[in-house]
Amino acid sequence: MSLEITVLGSNSALFAYGRHLTSQLITCGKSHFLVDCGEGTQLQIAKFGIKPSKISHILISHLHGDHYFGLIGLLSSMHLLGRDKELNIYAPVGLSEIITTQFRYSQTALKFKVNFIELTSEDSEVIFENKSLSVFTIPLKHRLYTNGFLFKEKPKERRVNKEKLRPDFTIEQIKSLKKGQDIEGESGEVLFKNDDYTLDPKKAWSYAFCSDTAYTKETSTYVKGVDLLYHESTFGSNEQDRAEITLHSTAQQAAQVAKDAEVGMLMLGHYSTRYESIEYLLEEAREVFENTIPSVEGEKIILDD
Amino acid sequence: MSLEITVLGSNSALFAYGRHLTSQLITCGKSHFLVDCGEGTQLQIAKFGIKPSKISHILISHLHGDHYFGLIGLLSSMHLLGRDKELNIYAPVGLSEIITTQFRYSQTALKFKVNFIELTSEDSEVIFENKSLSVFTIPLKHRLYTNGFLFKEKPKERRVNKEKLRPDFTIEQIKSLKKGQDIEGESGEVLFKNDDYTLDPKKAWSYAFCSDTAYTKETSTYVKGVDLLYHESTFGSNEQDRAEITLHSTAQQAAQVAKDAEVGMLMLGHYSTRYESIEYLLEEAREVFENTIPSVEGEKIILDD
Repeated sequence: MSLEITVLGSNSALFAYGRHLTSQLITCGKSHFLVDCGEGTQLQIAKFGIKPSKISHILISHLHGDHYFGLIGLLSSMHLLGRDKELNIYAPVGLSEIITTQFRYSQTALKFKVNFIELTSEDSEVIFENKSLSVFTIPLKHRLYTNGFLFKEKPKERRVNKEKLRPDFTIEQIKSLKKGQDIEGESGEVLFKNDDYTLDPKKAWSYAFCSDTAYTKETSTYVKGVDLLYHESTFGSNEQDRAEITLHSTAQQAAQVAKDAEVGMLMLGHYSTRYESIEYLLEEAREVFENTIPSVEGEKIILDD
Repeated sequence: MSLEITVLGSNSALFAYGRHLTSQLITCGKSHFLVDCGEGTQLQIAKFGIKPSKISHILISHLHGDHYFGLIGLLSSMHLLGRDKELNIYAPVGLSEIITTQFRYSQTALKFKVNFIELTSEDSEVIFENKSLSVFTIPLKHRLYTNGFLFKEKPKERRVNKEKLRPDFTIEQIKSLKKGQDIEGESGEVLFKNDDYTLDPKKAWSYAFCSDTAYTKETSTYVKGVDLLYHESTFGSNEQDRAEITLHSTAQQAAQVAKDAEVGMLMLGHYSTRYESIEYLLEEAREVFENTIPSVEGEKIILDD
């Protein structure tokens, strides 16, 4: 199992320089999460060969239009393409009214069920969980109620060491080994020590999506030690004041969060249209946190062993 | 003065084969009308070098999403780009609620005034008028309340024949000549006959936009004799049944309207995603009405002498 992050849009507020509005696809096994859905996201999905039918969960960080105006069109297209699979939409209060109002006027009865999960908590909460993954909200500080999202693989099982595996082990015994247990005899005595037959589990990966937000120290506690942190970096330090007024972050502030949280890698994004080239933002961030990459539309980052 | 029609989107329902959703820009002098605004229209506007600030009137035919989902994004972008000029939006009941609900949740107070003009009439009515142009609604027959739009230049003034013009004519006398009047003496006697000093006026052009609609005989009465008729042609005759069920038209039916109305030229559009090539639709239409062209995104048709 791995975490895959595909960037679909990297700009803030307006389309510019071929850059589109915020959206990312996060894949973990057979679970596909679309995070934010700016206008034209369905065009980006098609461009990068993603099948919308795969998406079962849509997470909307907040109700500024550059993060959700593409949702109604995507839902309509899913409907026209014959989708019948349920869809879960996690979003602040209001989105359900916005969507249902539009379908009411178009007299559209969707062929698939949409579950609106309204996010209202000011604290981090688990919004999705299966065998291998948990998704948490990350409370952010913006002009509207906003959440980031933390994707955290669950600890994985120990791996059986195939070279040492005994042919007379039963399936039950192998299951016990994977869980880290020794194999015991009938009276509880240790027959085979776990360490002798297993290898350490594969790494459980984690990814945090943080957009939009002012810089806060709290963010680093929520994203502590993640392997990849996407943190908005709308501005450079030349627009520090503007960042403060609009409750956005500079690239340096994004890097400060990455540094404080001791993450593996930082990905910038949500670029202001002021920056045709984002080299400046990248350089500023790298002064604070070296392992920084830009979000580039169409690029897929795979967190895997 | 001329009428200019720029096609921004030519497909129906879904993006396909690089084709976008319905939108056209109609220009008459300094008046710019955006007709319909499917998702991504602002991208098409940018692609074809149109300044959104020029647009003063947006006409929405009906509330199926492929005709208006791009409006909220366009309005947001106008706001972010600092627009302060009033904007008139002509649309069925519901659009104003849809737009204001979204701006309420995003806490956006637009920097410019939007006048929502709600269209409710089942008959043709004048919705815009200035010195040189009138715009009428065209009642259409679709699953939702739908209007087409007729752009009709007003009769133009006679042109002064520069070769015959006398240097002693006053400005008042020239104005009279342009209005088709003779120049009279103080006691009402004809001093100069209009015909001797003027030429016929330039042609007053007309353009009709009809999308979406089932075929009806009434349409041809509304668009009688227009120079250019855009009539939806979602299907070919191989999908006649589907056209009837969905209240759309076939290319042949569009051509029948063109023929009955004796228009100058027919433009097809609103193509179903069934048709990767629209040659088939074009051929079928031309069997009924020869002077038929396809709508091609980015192409500008200029109706002028």
